[in-house]
Amino acid sequence: MMTTTNRLPADTHIHNREDEWKIEQGLHGAALPILDQSGPESYFIKPLEYVPFKDENAIASVGDRDMLFQDEPNWKGHIEWENYPEKKEKAHKILSSQNFPPPPEYQMGPIPGTNPVLEGVRWKQWHYAIGGALKTVPEESWEIVLKEKHPEMLHLLQFPYNGESPKRLTTAKDITPNSLHFVRNHGGIPYISRDKYKLQLDGLVKNPRTFTLDELMNPDVFPRMEKLVTIQCSGTRRIEQIVYNAGEGDEMINAPWAEGAIGTAKYVGISLKKVIKACGGLIEDGKHLEFYGAETYFKKNSAMNYVVSVPWSKVKANEVMLAWEMNGEPLPKIHGYPLRVVVMGYIGARSVKWLYRIKAISNPSLAPVQSQEYLYFNQQTGKHNQRMTDGIQIQEMPVSSAIMMPWNKQVIIHNGSIHCKGWAYSGGGRWPERVEVSADGGFNWYAVPMDTMSPKARFAWRTWELDLPCEAEGWIEILCRCWDNALNTQPLNVRAAWNWGLHVTSSAHRISVYSVNKKREVTRKRLEEFESRGVPFGPLTVPTEWQVQSWDDYHAYWNKADPRDVDTEYHAEDLEG
Amino acid sequence: MMTTTNRLPADTHIHNREDEWKIEQGLHGAALPILDQSGPESYFIKPLEYVPFKDENAIASVGDRDMLFQDEPNWKGHIEWENYPEKKEKAHKILSSQNFPPPPEYQMGPIPGTNPVLEGVRWKQWHYAIGGALKTVPEESWEIVLKEKHPEMLHLLQFPYNGESPKRLTTAKDITPNSLHFVRNHGGIPYISRDKYKLQLDGLVKNPRTFTLDELMNPDVFPRMEKLVTIQCSGTRRIEQIVYNAGEGDEMINAPWAEGAIGTAKYVGISLKKVIKACGGLIEDGKHLEFYGAETYFKKNSAMNYVVSVPWSKVKANEVMLAWEMNGEPLPKIHGYPLRVVVMGYIGARSVKWLYRIKAISNPSLAPVQSQEYLYFNQQTGKHNQRMTDGIQIQEMPVSSAIMMPWNKQVIIHNGSIHCKGWAYSGGGRWPERVEVSADGGFNWYAVPMDTMSPKARFAWRTWELDLPCEAEGWIEILCRCWDNALNTQPLNVRAAWNWGLHVTSSAHRISVYSVNKKREVTRKRLEEFESRGVPFGPLTVPTEWQVQSWDDYHAYWNKADPRDVDTEYHAEDLEG
Repeated sequence: MMTTTNRLPADTHIHNREDEWKIEQGLHGAALPILDQSGPESYFIKPLEYVPFKDENAIASVGDRDMLFQDEPNWKGHIEWENYPEKKEKAHKILSSQNFPPPPEYQMGPIPGTNPVLEGVRWKQWHYAIGGALKTVPEESWEIVLKEKHPEMLHLLQFPYNGESPKRLTTAKDITPNSLHFVRNHGGIPYISRDKYKLQLDGLVKNPRTFTLDELMNPDVFPRMEKLVTIQCSGTRRIEQIVYNAGEGDEMINAPWAEGAIGTAKYVGISLKKVIKACGGLIEDGKHLEFYGAETYFKKNSAMNYVVSVPWSKVKANEVMLAWEMNGEPLPKIHGYPLRVVVMGYIGARSVKWLYRIKAISNPSLAPVQSQEYLYFNQQTGKHNQRMTDGIQIQEMPVSSAIMMPWNKQVIIHNGSIHCKGWAYSGGGRWPERVEVSADGGFNWYAVPMDTMSPKARFAWRTWELDLPCEAEGWIEILCRCWDNALNTQPLNVRAAWNWGLHVTSSAHRISVYSVNKKREVTRKRLEEFESRGVPFGPLTVPTEWQVQSWDDYHAYWNKADPRDVDTEYHAEDLEG
Repeated sequence: MMTTTNRLPADTHIHNREDEWKIEQGLHGAALPILDQSGPESYFIKPLEYVPFKDENAIASVGDRDMLFQDEPNWKGHIEWENYPEKKEKAHKILSSQNFPPPPEYQMGPIPGTNPVLEGVRWKQWHYAIGGALKTVPEESWEIVLKEKHPEMLHLLQFPYNGESPKRLTTAKDITPNSLHFVRNHGGIPYISRDKYKLQLDGLVKNPRTFTLDELMNPDVFPRMEKLVTIQCSGTRRIEQIVYNAGEGDEMINAPWAEGAIGTAKYVGISLKKVIKACGGLIEDGKHLEFYGAETYFKKNSAMNYVVSVPWSKVKANEVMLAWEMNGEPLPKIHGYPLRVVVMGYIGARSVKWLYRIKAISNPSLAPVQSQEYLYFNQQTGKHNQRMTDGIQIQEMPVSSAIMMPWNKQVIIHNGSIHCKGWAYSGGGRWPERVEVSADGGFNWYAVPMDTMSPKARFAWRTWELDLPCEAEGWIEILCRCWDNALNTQPLNVRAAWNWGLHVTSSAHRISVYSVNKKREVTRKRLEEFESRGVPFGPLTVPTEWQVQSWDDYHAYWNKADPRDVDTEYHAEDLEG
């Protein structure tokens, strides 16, 4: 399995010549030996080395996987796990009788420059290891991605598919086109035709029953809802936390999202409250609704369906929707066809796709997505001490915002103001009241004018544009922050909100750009010189090859400014002369 | 030559899918198009693409390079340029009749994980292009590096050789062994035997003359000096500025030094003041001494010798030494054999090696190393506006310090205090009085006790060790700062001192380490669990595969802590019940 802990004396000649620069750049932390100073002598502890193992006999003893792990009737890619503990047991035996490669190191090293950025090797291998109906799920899901999503999508993780829109397209429209809406799937993309589809309602409801889609779509029984809803992943802008400091490194759980893991769409459906009422309401201590998604999810060598819950209070407020339409079209397969949950103002993880069951329960779901993931830890919590109960189970999202233009490390030539674009959002039904932008690292703030912000809507983002006054040149830091209608705002530094699970990057978005202000005469003339010589100004780091100041200017300056090194004696002479 | 400026409309579909993560990580700025917002329409400007060119006829017209570019008598690797303007002209014609690859991008991208880190391709090609005595200089110099320097040296640049000691060796001793002393050469390594060597003194001295080494070493004429001197490159710790933001990117001028570009040695030699007196002293307005080094240096397609100057006031104070011995041995070839300048408390660039001429002049040297490089710019200065006269010519070095242990991004297991090591230094003859270390990002500071600091000496560093109290866990920031005897101290953030030339990283050294405090019970037990399962704790990012909290603990916690989502109704019930 794992190699045993490997202690080395701390004066061991770690040949760090090749990696010392990576240490300096913060890109080699994962390969550094741990330094144990807790004993009388210091030790280095070598990091994990992966040694594959596989117990073929144990795996074979489980039986015929094609027979064991079949799709539910009428479904493609939906194995039911939650009703069959013995099936779960068998899957667990298969998975724990072998090991799988550790997640790729994308936090303390450069993120791969590929698209898909990460492949999801382990997640694919888990599907192949179970076999049966899961065997072909990774490839089939990828085909749907290529069919349904925009060719410019940034494929963050090939499988389970995680993807976001590129920066220049994220806020190009106030309503996100379906093909550009971010996707954060937790497994494959199951499919059932709409006429075969059934939704099961059970648990602590008076009259458990099932509904066909036609029944749910009958406007005489369930009044239609149409809502503009922004869905945001709690991982949005996680890359900023990663760049600051590494956290838990699972490529799927903690993928390095940028600012595009947010999308706004018009959903059509019904209020879940009405469906509960149609079942006679909750009974006994029914206080939470557990949603079951048809995809297969994996956690600690177990297979399961995707399960989370929301409180009845949220449902009762008509803020939980069962939706079949997205921006005027039937839900795309990748977004949960034929029916999904849309929980307004909550983390996207609660808006379950390929919904097949809703169970009323008395306490929040114990399923791992709710109890072990999407936890918001205090900074003192990490690999050395983490417990499930140290984390806040993330439901409502806080106020946040992002700069979509310009881009980090970009050179901007301007005339005293930099044109910026972005989005702002607040969860729980609060909305952005004011967006502010700073060009000086968070000292002075300019408000975005009302007429360059998109309209207010409950549960939706606002996009914004601003000409940001900027006199200063060279590297500046542009920040944006939002104040919502409850006057919540964002902490200014990523450190303030950094957490081990790397969730909810709520700090003000901060980018470095190189400001070139053409209002300044020396700058304007210098740019003209680049232009007239036919030399591009970028890359910034390439030295200017010609003499940028005449010797006449040089001498004229020093005639006034000398002495460069003050010597009491001759300085006294100068004063006399 | 260069391609012409290439404008693209700003809505051009820049296919940034593959590089968008690099943008987020700050590792792709050099490839980003510049955004020009200064006109009525925005434009992208594509960065430079290198197109090689070479005018063979123009080069051939210069003549036989083996004849033109010969060594001076008795020297190997010393072409005299400063006395022969027509030779310089011919070299300039050769160099400007072709172009050379731009410097490698090591600032807005990962630094290569090789040793040598950078090769110095352009600098080698310049030598080959001139040919003659320079043809074999790159290879011969590298042989001397391998012979004279420690096998663990971090070869930052192969040619001209720039190298520093690895972190664990830099402060291992208070006096730096010659083989580990950093080297920042500006060209090849010239050689002359000590008995053939002559030093020329001319310019504004009363009696210009030459000296043999035996004459200079005659203690009856020139009293011996023995001094412990720390020499520091103004590039020391430059990597911290680079990681914050890119500056001018020449691989030789602005190499990405870490904390090892500092060294302390015992030099034996004589005071330059006595040598000037032996020439009858300065005449007329002689106020500066210009030093000539035998190596060939290149700047903007010109070849030259390495030339800088210091003011007479510095010489008069007996703070400029002509040295032939380093730590009890003759100067190593790589450190300037047979004679070098040691300017105490100044930037290392003034301590000229392979010294063959000293010229008294009335103003600071106009040579490019003094007038165009080693300039300390204001933050508003950059590629868009830089002029020589915007920079302070760096002479005295300010107070600075560095943490040599632990390392950035390292995981440290400890019992409530982290053992730290480092160095501190101040230029101009000031010395470190107090070193302070913080484990909380610069809020609380602990002073290094007197008995774990090396002794004070004028013009020398002090090394230090400290058990730094640290209760907190997870990622912390350790900083060190020094107060010198004039109570100068260091700015806390790299931003405060960032400058386009990336010189003099005087800000407090700041590293991220992951603190694991075994005094805490949960942590201690968790580490024991890792140990008993034979699973290494690192890499930090690898997820813990087992269930880290029992369901009993989980339920016990939530029995107290529920409700997770407050609902007025049932919360009221709870209060009543």
